[in-house]
Amino acid sequence: MADARAIGIFDSGLGGLTVAKEIIKLLPNENIVYFGDTGRVPYGTRSRETIVKYARQDEKFLLNKDVKLIVAACGTVSSVASDTAKELPVPFIEVVSHSVKSAVKATKNKKIGILATSATIASGSHKTQIKKLLPDCEVVESSGTLLVPLVEEGWTDVCDNVVYETVRRYLEPMIKAGVDTVILGCTHFPVLTQVISKIMGQGVTLINMGTATALAVKECLKLSDALNDSNNKGNHSYFVSDKTASFEKTASVLLNENIDGNTVEQVDINSL
Amino acid sequence: MADARAIGIFDSGLGGLTVAKEIIKLLPNENIVYFGDTGRVPYGTRSRETIVKYARQDEKFLLNKDVKLIVAACGTVSSVASDTAKELPVPFIEVVSHSVKSAVKATKNKKIGILATSATIASGSHKTQIKKLLPDCEVVESSGTLLVPLVEEGWTDVCDNVVYETVRRYLEPMIKAGVDTVILGCTHFPVLTQVISKIMGQGVTLINMGTATALAVKECLKLSDALNDSNNKGNHSYFVSDKTASFEKTASVLLNENIDGNTVEQVDINSL
Repeated sequence: MADARAIGIFDSGLGGLTVAKEIIKLLPNENIVYFGDTGRVPYGTRSRETIVKYARQDEKFLLNKDVKLIVAACGTVSSVASDTAKELPVPFIEVVSHSVKSAVKATKNKKIGILATSATIASGSHKTQIKKLLPDCEVVESSGTLLVPLVEEGWTDVCDNVVYETVRRYLEPMIKAGVDTVILGCTHFPVLTQVISKIMGQGVTLINMGTATALAVKECLKLSDALNDSNNKGNHSYFVSDKTASFEKTASVLLNENIDGNTVEQVDINSL
Repeated sequence: MADARAIGIFDSGLGGLTVAKEIIKLLPNENIVYFGDTGRVPYGTRSRETIVKYARQDEKFLLNKDVKLIVAACGTVSSVASDTAKELPVPFIEVVSHSVKSAVKATKNKKIGILATSATIASGSHKTQIKKLLPDCEVVESSGTLLVPLVEEGWTDVCDNVVYETVRRYLEPMIKAGVDTVILGCTHFPVLTQVISKIMGQGVTLINMGTATALAVKECLKLSDALNDSNNKGNHSYFVSDKTASFEKTASVLLNENIDGNTVEQVDINSL
């Protein structure tokens, strides 16, 4: 029994578009509803209570859109507020556990680096999950607080000194420790892949949460026979809680394709 | 008739503490109620509608605290949502017009630079007001989007290359134009005074919105005979809409004195 309902994806803002991008690439026939909480972004610097409250409202919005599966395309929510999933009537896929599995599979020297927001690092979610799968793994964490605004400003060029130096500073503990695998634990960071690769060197594997998550989404829908069997390209609807002038610019940096700002709908998330 | 009620100050987050600091310095006997909307910071990248809505809620919170005057210690609100002041039953002081007056007084070559958030620059508020007072003044605007997270990360050292290069990049159009006065149009920026001074050189006057605003507050209270005539040091109460782990660190960077996180109260601003 195929299921034509949409896959719901939410994030604190537009970063989750890098995850949406990977899901669209892997499952082009699926309908997608994306919600970006741009009116309350960022989540990464807020308290646990606030993050849980926001995540519940985001999930409620997607459920109202009759989605068949919810993806928390947000490192912070995945790390801090995954409990909210227990209350959901549909499958819930978050971005942390699947990237952890990929990283554990990739590492040879058992040294994994995690680059994420401060709330994600403080939650210890990646580290705890890695230690469960690979107890003697050395985990090196770094919270790249400035990297999200850097990406949103469009400063991502590998030849830009400020970009290179800022990223290098956050990666330094990982270089020193000699990790062979780095989890890009925030959805904004795939945009910095070129810079991070250059700094870490060729022998180091970068784990993109979007790629790992897209595979998990496909697997989950396949298992429950809920893949969309239509042969047409799926519909993609985008919703935000605040529509700013910079939306199109940021969205196109993250999604790597142009979104027409006029097709994006603004919703009042606080009232849910 | 002296008035012992508090001065209310609000900002999108903690940046307004640099304004509170100047008001406290100039009026040590006044009671202060500060509200920082840390649950919805930053305002600078949001739409006009959202900024107006948030400003109204912040003002309502302060009115409930029975303040005698409200200071919008936020460049974005001052630029985009000053209309909300018309509805207020108490005097309203914002940070833009008083810094504009100071800048116009300071400039000799009639070339003024404005460093602010993108919403403040987009509003054109500084430029419009400068042109009214000094029609043949050349105004050079630059939105220093990355500078707020830079300050909040505590990267403010004048000897730090990343800090220097990032700030220099945003100041470049002003250097090229040869401005002799720069308005620090965002409350976070006084913390970067040393770096900005070094880059702009000694002949350039930097306008701190906090200093200009504190003088205006004093003048306004004096005119309406509403200064607090107590000889005791005033009470300072701090409220936020989200209490994060980094509150004490950021607050101490901005206020340049330690705040005990336990004395800060969290309020639900969305319900107002």
